[in-house]
Amino acid sequence: MEKRKILVLGGGFGGVFAAKSLEKLGRGKIDVELVNANNYFVFQPLLPEVAAASIHSADAVVPLRQLLRGLQVRQAEVMGIDFEKKSVIVVQGARRVPIDLHYDELVIALGTSVDLKRFPGLPEHALTMKDLADAHRLRTHVIGCLETADVTTDPEVKRQLLSFVVVGAGFSGVETVAEMRELVTRALRYYPNIQPDEIRMSLIEYADRILPTFPADLADYATRRLKIHGIDVLTGVGTKAATGTAVELTNGSIIPTSTIVATIGNGPHALVSALGLDLHWARIKTDRFMQVPGHEGVWALGDAALIPLVDNPGENPADYATQTAQFAVREGHQLATNILAKLEGKPLKPFAYRSKGSLASLGMSKAVADVYGIKLSGTFAWLLWRGFYLSFLPGFTAKLRVGINWLVNSVMPPNIVQIQSAPPATRYCHYRKGDLVFEPGMLIDGFYTVIKGSFRLTIDNPETSEHFEKLFGPGDHFGERVLVRSSLRTGLVVALEDGVLLFIAQKDFTRFARAFPFLDNYFKDYIEETFGGSDKSFAAGSKNQQSELETLP
Amino acid sequence: MEKRKILVLGGGFGGVFAAKSLEKLGRGKIDVELVNANNYFVFQPLLPEVAAASIHSADAVVPLRQLLRGLQVRQAEVMGIDFEKKSVIVVQGARRVPIDLHYDELVIALGTSVDLKRFPGLPEHALTMKDLADAHRLRTHVIGCLETADVTTDPEVKRQLLSFVVVGAGFSGVETVAEMRELVTRALRYYPNIQPDEIRMSLIEYADRILPTFPADLADYATRRLKIHGIDVLTGVGTKAATGTAVELTNGSIIPTSTIVATIGNGPHALVSALGLDLHWARIKTDRFMQVPGHEGVWALGDAALIPLVDNPGENPADYATQTAQFAVREGHQLATNILAKLEGKPLKPFAYRSKGSLASLGMSKAVADVYGIKLSGTFAWLLWRGFYLSFLPGFTAKLRVGINWLVNSVMPPNIVQIQSAPPATRYCHYRKGDLVFEPGMLIDGFYTVIKGSFRLTIDNPETSEHFEKLFGPGDHFGERVLVRSSLRTGLVVALEDGVLLFIAQKDFTRFARAFPFLDNYFKDYIEETFGGSDKSFAAGSKNQQSELETLP
Repeated sequence: MEKRKILVLGGGFGGVFAAKSLEKLGRGKIDVELVNANNYFVFQPLLPEVAAASIHSADAVVPLRQLLRGLQVRQAEVMGIDFEKKSVIVVQGARRVPIDLHYDELVIALGTSVDLKRFPGLPEHALTMKDLADAHRLRTHVIGCLETADVTTDPEVKRQLLSFVVVGAGFSGVETVAEMRELVTRALRYYPNIQPDEIRMSLIEYADRILPTFPADLADYATRRLKIHGIDVLTGVGTKAATGTAVELTNGSIIPTSTIVATIGNGPHALVSALGLDLHWARIKTDRFMQVPGHEGVWALGDAALIPLVDNPGENPADYATQTAQFAVREGHQLATNILAKLEGKPLKPFAYRSKGSLASLGMSKAVADVYGIKLSGTFAWLLWRGFYLSFLPGFTAKLRVGINWLVNSVMPPNIVQIQSAPPATRYCHYRKGDLVFEPGMLIDGFYTVIKGSFRLTIDNPETSEHFEKLFGPGDHFGERVLVRSSLRTGLVVALEDGVLLFIAQKDFTRFARAFPFLDNYFKDYIEETFGGSDKSFAAGSKNQQSELETLP
Repeated sequence: MEKRKILVLGGGFGGVFAAKSLEKLGRGKIDVELVNANNYFVFQPLLPEVAAASIHSADAVVPLRQLLRGLQVRQAEVMGIDFEKKSVIVVQGARRVPIDLHYDELVIALGTSVDLKRFPGLPEHALTMKDLADAHRLRTHVIGCLETADVTTDPEVKRQLLSFVVVGAGFSGVETVAEMRELVTRALRYYPNIQPDEIRMSLIEYADRILPTFPADLADYATRRLKIHGIDVLTGVGTKAATGTAVELTNGSIIPTSTIVATIGNGPHALVSALGLDLHWARIKTDRFMQVPGHEGVWALGDAALIPLVDNPGENPADYATQTAQFAVREGHQLATNILAKLEGKPLKPFAYRSKGSLASLGMSKAVADVYGIKLSGTFAWLLWRGFYLSFLPGFTAKLRVGINWLVNSVMPPNIVQIQSAPPATRYCHYRKGDLVFEPGMLIDGFYTVIKGSFRLTIDNPETSEHFEKLFGPGDHFGERVLVRSSLRTGLVVALEDGVLLFIAQKDFTRFARAFPFLDNYFKDYIEETFGGSDKSFAAGSKNQQSELETLP
C-alpha cells in the first residue's frame, strides 16, 4: 500500500493524541502532518496557574515538535480548505504565500473560539482564558492593577483597580477566580498601600449554581470555600454589557472594575464556521465514527466536533461526547484506529466512552473531585487534582518542569514581575451614558472616531475664559490635536448616550497622518477651522519634557 | 532633622543599589522613593541566556518591590523634571494624569538608550539586547526562524532565515552570539529539515578585534572558541545599512539575513537628552561627588553619568568611571553616603574605584576571565562566570530561581516554545534598490505609504492579459485594496532605488478607514479611478476561506 497523507489541523488534546496514535499505529504506512498556529500544545487545565504566576508561561505548554517526534509539525495559519481538491491552504512565516497541502485523510481538531458578541462591550473589554497568551495577559494585567492601586491617590480609580470580576462559573471560571485570589493575597505583602479589605472579587454565573457539571453538594462546598476567601459568588444573574470601567449585570446592578475575565461564550473556530459544514451547537456534526458526512476523507474530533454516542441522537447533550480533555484523548485514539481501519478496508468502530469523573481546583490547596462516582473535597482532592493533571500532562520533560514550578512556588514568594507588551494600536472602547472619555490634564495618548452614540467635547480656557463646545456623532472624530503635539488634554469629553469609540494610539496615528499628506492636510485645516488661532493657547506642555514625535527614518 | 524626600529615577544597578544604601544608612531620617517604568530590576548579564531560552524571562529579573522592601517603589513613566520647583513629573496607570513628585534630593540613574540612527534601516530592522523585552523578542524570533526554515520550500528564504548576524563584539555581542549559537545547535534535533551546515552566524565588529576591554590573548582565545562553533568573526568592518532581508557592511559586502542583533550605539536616555543638562559622550557630567553642577540637589550615577575619577579629567575615558554594573554598584553606595553626609552637613567623599576585572561567557560551558590581573579561559572561567553572577544577583529568591533554571536547562532539552506577540500595527521598512516589496500570490496583509525613494507597481492580469504599471514617490500609497478585501496580492512592487515605506497592518488600517468616512470615500474613489471596473477581476480569493473583515462592535 502506497503511503497515504494524513493531515491533522489543530494541536490541542484531540489533534495531538490523534496524531500520536496515528504515528504509533500506522508507522511506515502513512505520512502524518500536524498543522497548528502555535508551535506548542497548550495544557488548558494549567492556564489559571499561569495567570496566577505560579507556573511559567513556557512551562504550562509543550513544544509540539518535542511531543510529536518522528512526524511532521508545521507552524502555520490555516486559511481555508478545498474539499474537492482535497487540499488545505496554509500561510506560514515571512513570505506569506498561501501553500496547498494535499491530504488523503483530513482530521479537523481546531477546537472552539470565544464568542462574546451577544454582550456589548465584553468582546472589547473582557480578558479571556482560552490560550497561553490570555493567561499571560491576565497575569500582567492583575499585577498592573496592584502596581497602580498602590500609588494612585484617586479612591474611585483605586476601587476599580482592586475589583476583579470573573464571568462564568464552570471549571475555567472557578479555577481562574480562585487562582487570581491566591495571587493577589500572596502579592499584597509587596503593596503596603493596599489593605486586604479593599480587594473585591466577584464570580458571576447565569445558572442557579456554580460548577453545573458537578454534584450539587460538591458545588455547595466549592461555593463555601470561595466565599471563605472573600469571593462574592453571584448566581442566577447574567452579564449584560461591559465598558473599560464597569460591568453591568442582567439585574441592573453595576460593578465598577478594570478587570473582567470572561470564561463563557463558546463559538465555532473562525475557519470551521467558514467551511460551510453542517454545524449544530456551533460544532461539526459527525457520524459515530467521527467522519464528517458528505465529505469523503474528512474527520472531526475534540471540542470542534459533535460526536454522537447513540444511534439516533436528539437534542439531549448526553447523546454526544462532552467537550473535555478526557474525551478528546479517547476520541483521538479511536479516530486514529478508524482511519487505519478505513485504509486497510476493515470495519470502523463507533466512538464510545463514559467519563471517569471530574476535578476542579479551588486554590489555597483545596479542590473538589467526583471520581468514579466517589465525591471528594478539600486538600486530598487537591492533591488528587495535581497528581491527576501531572500524570495527564504529556511528556516527561513537561511533567518535570511543572513539578519544579509547583515546588518553587510553594516555597517562594510569588513572582510579581510584570512583563508588559504594547497595547494594540487600534481598539474599540465602549462607554455608558455619562462616562468620561477624557478630561483636561490627561496625557494625550491618541485619536478617537465615533462608531456609535454621541459624545460632547467642552473646552474652557482659563486664560481667555472662552468656552468651546462640540457634539460628535458616528463618523466624527476628536483628539486630532495629537498631531500638533499639545501634550495634555485641554478638553472634557463625555458620552451623552451609550456608545462606542475607535481609539488609535498617538504613535501610529501620527505616523500614518505624517506619511499621508492628504490626511495631514485634512487635519491641519480641520484644526485651524475648529479651534482657530486659539489652539496655541490650549497647547499645554511642561518644562524639560521628552518630545513625543519620532524622527523619520 | 525633618524627613527629607530622596527620589531615585531608574531601577538598574545604579538606582537600586543607591536606594538600598540610602534605606540602610538613612532609615528614619529620610524618605526614599524609586521610580521605574517596569516593576522589576533587570539583571543585564543574564539577558543573553533569556534570549537563548535557558532562563525564563521572569527569572532573569527581580521584582523591585521584593528587592527594596521598606521603601516606596512607583511603577511610572517619567515625563519631565522641573529643577526650579524641585519636582518630577510622572505618569502612571490607567488615568494618565501627570503627577508632580516633590524631591529634596534627586538621583538620576536612567541608564542609556540604544541609538542606531547613524545606520539607515538598523533602528527599524535590528533587534536590540537592552532590556527583558528585547531578550524575549530575540528568543521568539530565532525559534520562529527555525520553524519557518523547517517547512519553507524556497531556498533563498531558507538561507535568510538561517543566517544570524550580531553587530558589535563587546560583552553583550559576544555573549549573545554564543548563546544564540547554543540555542540553535541544541534545538536542531527538533527541526529534521534543517542541516547544521545550513546555519550561518556572523559577528561584526568595527574595531580590529573582539572584546576590546579584554587583554589581547583572551580576545584571541574567545575568537578561536567562536570560530570552532562555526561563527564567522568579522573584525575591522562596520555596519552600513540594513533591510528586512539583509545587512550591508562598510566593505560593501551584503549578508542576507532575517535576524540582525545590534549591541552597539549607546545614546542618552530620551528624558536625559531633554533635560538640557551638560552632556559629554551622551552622559551627564557630574563632579567627583556625583553631583550635577548647577543643579542643587541633583545627582547622577551609573551608565547615565560621566563621573570623573581624577581632578582635572580630560578626553581620556580612563579619567572617568566605566559603564559597568561593577562600577554602578560602588557608585550607588558612595552616592548614598554622600547624600546623607550632605544632609548632615558633613564633607562629601569623591568617588574612587578600580575594576576588579571582567568576565565574558562564550557559551558551551566556556568563558574568558581577567580577574585581579589573572587571566583565565575555558570551563573553569565559565564556572567562575556563573558563580560570580549568581553571587552578584541581588536577593536569595532570585539566586535560587536562576540556579534552578541553570540546573533544569543543563539536564533537559531546550524549551523551544515560541510565545508570539502581535507585531506593531505600523512600522517603517527599508528597501534596497531592486528589493521586492510584494508579488502576486502573497497574502494581503496591509497598506503602504512611501516615505523615501520610488517604487514601481506592475499588475499583469492573466485573464484579460492587460498590463498595468504605476510609479510611487514620497506621499504616494499602495495596497489600499485591503479595503475591498481581495485576499491575495495581484501586483508586483519593487524598489527602484533605496527607499523607506510605512507599513500599516490590514486590521488597523481597515478599522481606521471604516470608522472615518472621509478616508473611506477617498480610497473608494481612488481605487475606482486607478483600477476601474477591472478591479473585480483582480480580486483573488479561494474556497472556504475565513473572512478577514471583523464585525463592528
